[in-house]
Amino acid sequence: MDYKGSGVDIDAGNETVRRIRTLARSTFTPGVLSDIGSFGGLFRLDAGSYKDAVLVSSADGVGTKLKVAFMAGRHDTVGVDLVNHCVNDILVQGAEPLFFLDYLATGRLSPDVAETVVNGMATACRENSCALLGGETAEMPGFYADGEYDLAGFIVGAVDKERLITGRAIRPGDRLVGVPSSGLHTNGYSLARRIAFDHLGLRADSIVPDLGRTVADAFLEPHRSYLAMIRPLLDRIKGMAHITGGGITENLPRVLPHGTAAVVDTAAWDVPPVFQWLQQAGRVPVDDMRRTFNMGIGMILVVGPERADAALEELAARGGREARMIGEVVAGDAPSVSYA
Amino acid sequence: MDYKGSGVDIDAGNETVRRIRTLARSTFTPGVLSDIGSFGGLFRLDAGSYKDAVLVSSADGVGTKLKVAFMAGRHDTVGVDLVNHCVNDILVQGAEPLFFLDYLATGRLSPDVAETVVNGMATACRENSCALLGGETAEMPGFYADGEYDLAGFIVGAVDKERLITGRAIRPGDRLVGVPSSGLHTNGYSLARRIAFDHLGLRADSIVPDLGRTVADAFLEPHRSYLAMIRPLLDRIKGMAHITGGGITENLPRVLPHGTAAVVDTAAWDVPPVFQWLQQAGRVPVDDMRRTFNMGIGMILVVGPERADAALEELAARGGREARMIGEVVAGDAPSVSYA
Repeated sequence: MDYKGSGVDIDAGNETVRRIRTLARSTFTPGVLSDIGSFGGLFRLDAGSYKDAVLVSSADGVGTKLKVAFMAGRHDTVGVDLVNHCVNDILVQGAEPLFFLDYLATGRLSPDVAETVVNGMATACRENSCALLGGETAEMPGFYADGEYDLAGFIVGAVDKERLITGRAIRPGDRLVGVPSSGLHTNGYSLARRIAFDHLGLRADSIVPDLGRTVADAFLEPHRSYLAMIRPLLDRIKGMAHITGGGITENLPRVLPHGTAAVVDTAAWDVPPVFQWLQQAGRVPVDDMRRTFNMGIGMILVVGPERADAALEELAARGGREARMIGEVVAGDAPSVSYA
Repeated sequence: MDYKGSGVDIDAGNETVRRIRTLARSTFTPGVLSDIGSFGGLFRLDAGSYKDAVLVSSADGVGTKLKVAFMAGRHDTVGVDLVNHCVNDILVQGAEPLFFLDYLATGRLSPDVAETVVNGMATACRENSCALLGGETAEMPGFYADGEYDLAGFIVGAVDKERLITGRAIRPGDRLVGVPSSGLHTNGYSLARRIAFDHLGLRADSIVPDLGRTVADAFLEPHRSYLAMIRPLLDRIKGMAHITGGGITENLPRVLPHGTAAVVDTAAWDVPPVFQWLQQAGRVPVDDMRRTFNMGIGMILVVGPERADAALEELAARGGREARMIGEVVAGDAPSVSYA
């Protein structure tokens, strides 16, 4: 018996590492000291850039959006989803990304699939000036179904302590600015897949007339990064919520201080067709929709009323023309969201 | 249709988060600024402690050691494995841990199992003075078999740039100090499981006479952390190799500079019974053993010949009585290991 006979192909692993190394190098920023292959990734913190550096980190997965990628045989978007999700998660506290690491676990490693997935991560890392500093590619025979894998990401960013966005300064009267999502982003896929594939019996390549595209095209639309659009506004934002699992209903209260609540004006934006279609086809109660999907709003900024118009103008100048005022902060017993 | 009907139990998720929060808080070090539940974890870097801080990070999994945990229904050790593996991976470059994040993905979330797994991580984090700063707990219906999960960890540590251990100063004549492993650590489990369960037909609770314990007890022995033992020696070590997947054969060359090679004296230590038993039962060629398992050596330190005896004494004083000289560095065309 040897190791290859046990289902682990060290040569395929080494070939994958070779391909990944090239992709990772393409993302290296000046802070990177190590080459891939070191035990740990090395990143030099430019201490001169911070008075009092706070590291902000987050771990995320892509969830069952991966299943749609498997069905469609399309592996180029999930890496983008993962990186952008992570970038947004630390952006809400004012941090800009330094580096990213991934965990890619499969049953049997295909160097082609691994390269395609990592290429998606590398592309998104470059766009966010974030170094893909390392990761773990694990071949785990008998763990994942053939052709399947799981993917997790880990990001570290930094922000000066005095520039941290905490939500503590939020007061009744502050405005909620909603920035559009590009689609489902990375949550709600267990319900979405159940409706499309189990209930309606569609396939990944079925065209949905209401959407004018295939299920796979609609469901695999990459999670967008808000970094470039929002970075110039960071010092004028009191709080920010990334609308992920739990929807606006559960994510917006996470940034509200005690004594406040949010009223969201659902007439302020058009819920995109993919959510309308899912709601109708699955007869999903609207409350469940709102605590499952982003409903077209991927990020919410909380700004003082005197700054709301200027924030919208700045967002519009950076591709956020569809950002709009979607509600306001009111007095309340406990942080919560009501829909008007 | 609603979200719970799609297989995702938000209430079980919230219950799990409540339990994890308490465990994570028990690990918080003075650098931690955030509470669990923020979008990102916040860690204040104590800039006064570094002249030129380098962040060292690593991502790892537990691999198919998890399958043994599932078979044995024992979930308290895999979190320890994960944290200690990560701690060792950054220790080899001289870094001490700052914080850790985990990714725990399941098919159907059991708050009890999740709590037990996270408790293992929290325990190991406390022992390594490493904050469990956050993580992602993902419920992915239809992704993992019932009762199964995957687990990945991400660590960030720091070291002053001038104290980085790079291996560049390694020269022919330097000595290799081997520090014992506690067992298989976290690699080689696909082969070990194949031998024990498929080939020999044993169960997790079968007693192996050669080992005087059950398969599960032998295979689940936690990966040890070398931080406390090695920390005081860091400024006298030229290079270090954490012996993980690939064994001594593939890991030791990763720290050797061009122009050097290593000769390992296999008579210098006794290969522990679990490896001897696997080798004999599976008729595994010795080369495969050595590039699959750690063979009883979990960490190798490279030190100048004049410092080797003192290093052994210092290790002995901190619980490393079984550390010993296991070979030396020689001139060579390309970094490699030969066994004498």
